Amino acid sequence: MLLAENTHQKSLTPEAISVIKSLKVFFVENIKTTRRFISSLKEGIVIDELQFFEINQDTGFEEVYNFLQETEGDFGVISEAGCAGVADPGALVVEVAHQLGIKVNPLVGPNSILLALMASGFNGQSFVFHGYLPIKEEERAKKLRKIEKEATQKKQTQIFMETPYRNHQLLTTIYNNLNPATRLCVACDITSDSEFIKTQSVGTWKKKGLPDIQKRPTIFLIY
Amino acid sequence: MLLAENTHQKSLTPEAISVIKSLKVFFVENIKTTRRFISSLKEGIVIDELQFFEINQDTGFEEVYNFLQETEGDFGVISEAGCAGVADPGALVVEVAHQLGIKVNPLVGPNSILLALMASGFNGQSFVFHGYLPIKEEERAKKLRKIEKEATQKKQTQIFMETPYRNHQLLTTIYNNLNPATRLCVACDITSDSEFIKTQSVGTWKKKGLPDIQKRPTIFLIY
Repeated sequence: MLLAENTHQKSLTPEAISVIKSLKVFFVENIKTTRRFISSLKEGIVIDELQFFEINQDTGFEEVYNFLQETEGDFGVISEAGCAGVADPGALVVEVAHQLGIKVNPLVGPNSILLALMASGFNGQSFVFHGYLPIKEEERAKKLRKIEKEATQKKQTQIFMETPYRNHQLLTTIYNNLNPATRLCVACDITSDSEFIKTQSVGTWKKKGLPDIQKRPTIFLIY
Repeated sequence: MLLAENTHQKSLTPEAISVIKSLKVFFVENIKTTRRFISSLKEGIVIDELQFFEINQDTGFEEVYNFLQETEGDFGVISEAGCAGVADPGALVVEVAHQLGIKVNPLVGPNSILLALMASGFNGQSFVFHGYLPIKEEERAKKLRKIEKEATQKKQTQIFMETPYRNHQLLTTIYNNLNPATRLCVACDITSDSEFIKTQSVGTWKKKGLPDIQKRPTIFLIY
């Protein structure tokens, strides 16, 4: 099986394209957008000959297990954005594949967490991705202070995110709770034309006012 | 500035190639292999017109700062393997670029940590990369037991690595110290033809004997 992502062609490697061309069965998050993505490759793939299995957060282990036991030949997992299997439902398919002894072949593709880490200038030898922070203000502030302490004590880059329409609230919580000397990287709209990535101290961010990142997918990193 | 990596062409995106073509100044880990890499692209780039600045673990902040202040136009950072800035000296250049207000543009490329996470089937919503574990047997065993506890308590994928010639020692320490039910993914020679990635319980690994991963670059994941 292979793991790839539905992305801009400029971010696809020749290897990913050739593997997609060779497969007939795909696990996908969204059939409609995946069909459109495969068409956009203009590689002469006949979409109607392909078989799609839509996976979401409710897809169960057994469902995938039974399907895969009956599937002959190789298959792919294509995620909507970011890497298949990282912070998306593809991980379940990979888990089942390992249980069935199926070889798993990850393909190079864009991942905003890793691209943000590369572009932050922070420690890449030791880092943690927390996913989403708690929504409630008090818990969130507590978690942020804990994360800041760990960044300092363990010299470990701390990475987290927020639902885009709450980005400004998260920034406000950061400004009100973290040490002005702590460095914060805001990595917004990664790989798109409006990409914006900046690292500076919390104090400097605060002084310059909120950057306009509301409703834009953003990765936050502190160190 | 851009961040890219010296890799097989099959793993390079069209965007990375076009950006490399547009630049004249590069920070690199190794000038010789980078020259060879750029030639191998067969994009008609005249190597003798390029300027290289070799960075290593001893390169100082000021040295890069002074060089960048005098550099006109855009420049790139090319790492030897894996992503520039993640677990390699490129991070310093990125740090200086942010201080000078230079825009940083990370380019999609292979990263064994992330590819291993994708292919493990483990939780990608929360994960930590520890880098190298302690070398001394006792400390290493202690660290592994701590990591295992965190994987369970925080439902967080734990990622680490070892100098390749000590891989077998590390596996032995894992077998002797971790719960047989803990799942271990061994991801070896990622993106090369001999790639080997397998997830199973520590008990199953132990029963089947050591896989031959000695001296082969490997990422270990537990969950």
